[in-house]
Order: sequence, then C-alpha cells, then structure tokens
Amino acid sequence: MRNVKLTIQYDGTRYAGWQFQKNALSIQEVIEAVVRKILGRKVSVVASGRTDAGVHARAQVAHFRMSSPIPLDRLQMALNASLPKDIVISKIEEASDRFHAQHSAKSKLYRYTIVNNNFVDPLIRRHVAKVFFKLDVALMKKAAKLIEGRHDFKAFQALDQRRDQDSVRTVKAIRIHIEGECIHIDVEANGFLYNMVRNIVGTLVEVGRGKIPMEQVREMFVRKDRRLCGPTMPSRGLCLLKVNY
Amino acid sequence: MRNVKLTIQYDGTRYAGWQFQKNALSIQEVIEAVVRKILGRKVSVVASGRTDAGVHARAQVAHFRMSSPIPLDRLQMALNASLPKDIVISKIEEASDRFHAQHSAKSKLYRYTIVNNNFVDPLIRRHVAKVFFKLDVALMKKAAKLIEGRHDFKAFQALDQRRDQDSVRTVKAIRIHIEGECIHIDVEANGFLYNMVRNIVGTLVEVGRGKIPMEQVREMFVRKDRRLCGPTMPSRGLCLLKVNY
Repeated sequence: MRNVKLTIQYDGTRYAGWQFQKNALSIQEVIEAVVRKILGRKVSVVASGRTDAGVHARAQVAHFRMSSPIPLDRLQMALNASLPKDIVISKIEEASDRFHAQHSAKSKLYRYTIVNNNFVDPLIRRHVAKVFFKLDVALMKKAAKLIEGRHDFKAFQALDQRRDQDSVRTVKAIRIHIEGECIHIDVEANGFLYNMVRNIVGTLVEVGRGKIPMEQVREMFVRKDRRLCGPTMPSRGLCLLKVNY
Repeated sequence: MRNVKLTIQYDGTRYAGWQFQKNALSIQEVIEAVVRKILGRKVSVVASGRTDAGVHARAQVAHFRMSSPIPLDRLQMALNASLPKDIVISKIEEASDRFHAQHSAKSKLYRYTIVNNNFVDPLIRRHVAKVFFKLDVALMKKAAKLIEGRHDFKAFQALDQRRDQDSVRTVKAIRIHIEGECIHIDVEANGFLYNMVRNIVGTLVEVGRGKIPMEQVREMFVRKDRRLCGPTMPSRGLCLLKVNY
C-alpha cells in the first residue's frame, strides 16, 4: 500500500469543519467523496487534527492509503478538477509507511486575524474578525508572554469538552504583528484543546481593550476557570497555517 | 447644498458593475437605495467611473449632494450598518462645491492579479485570475514599457464600444511585481477605455507565454486592430486601487 500525504488549502466558510458529521457538510466528507470517485474505492482521509466549523487552512495536512499505481501529479490534477473551488490540494507526496498526519505532527501553527476598525475591507471579510474597541497591542504582547510555555490550559478549553482529559499543552510561541488594519496573532503549540486558540485570542482582545488585567491572565493557569478568560472569538478569523513534522 | 465625497470598497463578485442597470444589481443602485433610506430623499451618487461586472474596488470615489445637516461620521456609520458586507464606505468627507468624482479625476490606478499556477489558494480565489502557462515576467515588463505613454488605444478597446470616440489615452505607468504565487500588474492612466486594463493584461499574458512577439505589441498602436491584442482577462482579477485628484 502507498501512503499518500496531502497538503490542503480551504476556505472553511461553508463547511461544518474538517471532520465528518451527520447532517452537515464537512471538508473530510468532500475530499473522501472525490478520492473515492477517482480511485473507485472508499478511503479514509486522516488529517492532522480537526478544524472547527468556519475555520480556514493554508496548509492542513492529511494522509490516506491506496494501492493504485496512479502518478501523484495526475492524481492531484484529478482531485483539484473535481473538488469545489474552496478546497485545493496544493501538494501531494509519497510518505513513508510510518507517516501519520495526526500522530506524527510535532506542532501546529494557527493564525488569527483581527481587523481593529469600525468596518472591514470587503475583499478580506470572510477571513477576519472585526474588533472595533481600540486595542493596545503592546499590552496584548505582554499578556501573550504569560500564555507562552507549558501550562494546564483547562481555562482556555471549550466548556462542552469532556473535562477529564489531560489539558496540559506547550505553547511554543505567540507572535503578534500589525499589517495595515490587521492584527495577526500567530499561535504555535504542540497541541490544541478545542477552541483553545479562539479563547486565547479572546483573552488577548480583552487585555488589549483594558477589560482583563495582567494578573488575571496569570490566575487563569492557577484557578483553571473558563470564566476568567475572554470570549471565544468567531471562527472566520482563524486559519491553520502550518503543521510541523 | 453640501457636497459629500465617499471612498468606497467593494467585492464586485455578485454585482453587475458600478453603474445602474435594468434587470441586474449594481453597486450604484445599492448605495443610492441606502442613502435614500437614511436621508429620506432620492440622491444621485456619481462615481469616478464605471467598474465592470465582477470588478472590485479598494478605493472607488463618488460624490453626492445633500442638504441634511447630519454629521458625516454618523452618516458613515448609518450607511455601513445598512449596506451589505461586500460594500463598505471606508471614508466620508466634505468636498468643495466644485468637486466632481468623475470630472475632477486626474488619473486612476488599477491592479490586476494573476496566480501563475495550476491551482488557486481558496482564500483569494474571488479576486485573482489563474494562468497556468508559465509566464516570463521579464518579457512582460519589456512589453509593458511599450504600452506606457500616450497612444491611441483603439486596439485595446472592447469591440462593442462605440468606435468613433476619441481613444487616445496616457498610460502613466505599468508596474509588475511578484508576491508569492501572485503577479500584480498595476496600470495607471489618465483615463481608460472599456475593457482596456483587461485587454492590456491579456496582451501581457500572451507575451509572457511566448504567443505574442514584441513587434506585434508595437504594431497594435499602428494598426489599431483589436485582433492583434491578447484576450480580455476575466473581471475577477481586476481591482480599482486608487483615484487621483
């Protein structure tokens, strides 16, 4: 069996996220259907991790196994010709038998983009979130430093997640930079809890508008209480930039 | 009467262009309807020029007259709250009585964006055109130099245009630069004929893929024959970047 590694770009706007769901269209379902059509048999396409409904990707990684001898560049062309325009296979590679898109991943990099203005450029509106309270980016960078490192991120976890799982993660870096009217917040970690990036960004936004003091950020890791964090930011501003192996 | 100057951003994807049309939704129609709703009277909103169906704008300029004493920042908020998300008033100013969005314009700057690849990043797909033939950008820059300057651009004019009008224009500059997988072609002129930018870019693309030799570009201005030019590029890649007054 060949092990095929895919790098995938998608505009998540009209999808219920990566993972297969009953009663809602997922990216996984669309890709599996197209692979099945081309190869003539059912395959299971495994990604580095789920992305939530409405979240985008510049380089999601996935793998699947096949016995077909089809050249990979032809397979890529056939996949892209059949996929809707909001999903693209940007790279296709032969992977070693041991490669597993989820288990082999060492870290992931997400970008959250905020437009700090009263209105949003229509050309980027599907891929950013608007915050109209003026944000103090220097304060946000200070708070980001407190979030970096190995911590129990239970406070940053979605409340509907099973609460008994291990919630210790290592945030390798949070980089914040301004580009025109956009504030990009890049978060790299060895793993993410459900909604973790969006809750980190919600917290940084509350710090940036003066609603959450610096001490409260420290307390989040001590008291592990979801109510100390900022709100979950909308999914439209979130994009999976890179998976590191 | 106050003379109000608007700077407008739009994603042209779902519109039949700037100008009012029967049986099709135009940007002008949408904006005039919203202004009318807020001011309680019919106004005519005049833009620097039409943009065609599917063409975008980062800074279209328009003006209208009103007697209302409403503060402009409040008017801007009210307009943006009522407009669909693909049209935004990014700036609103009091203009002198003599200011006319079309007649006062000295030059306009358009950007055409090509993705020179087999597939297009889904996050930008609505605002670029794909060219999968490998393009020689150095050749394109050479051809652009021949197009710059004051010429009769009849060969670059849409065929359905009235043919008797003056077709002499001055292209002040064509700047081509590469950004990742995108080739941006910026064209600044004192005025544009219908489809002129898209025909210039279609010509540059044919030069870049070796289909149109350099001498043929020179000939376009001598023989003024539309058939010598490249094809009209799709509107989705075109954006009005700036109007200079």
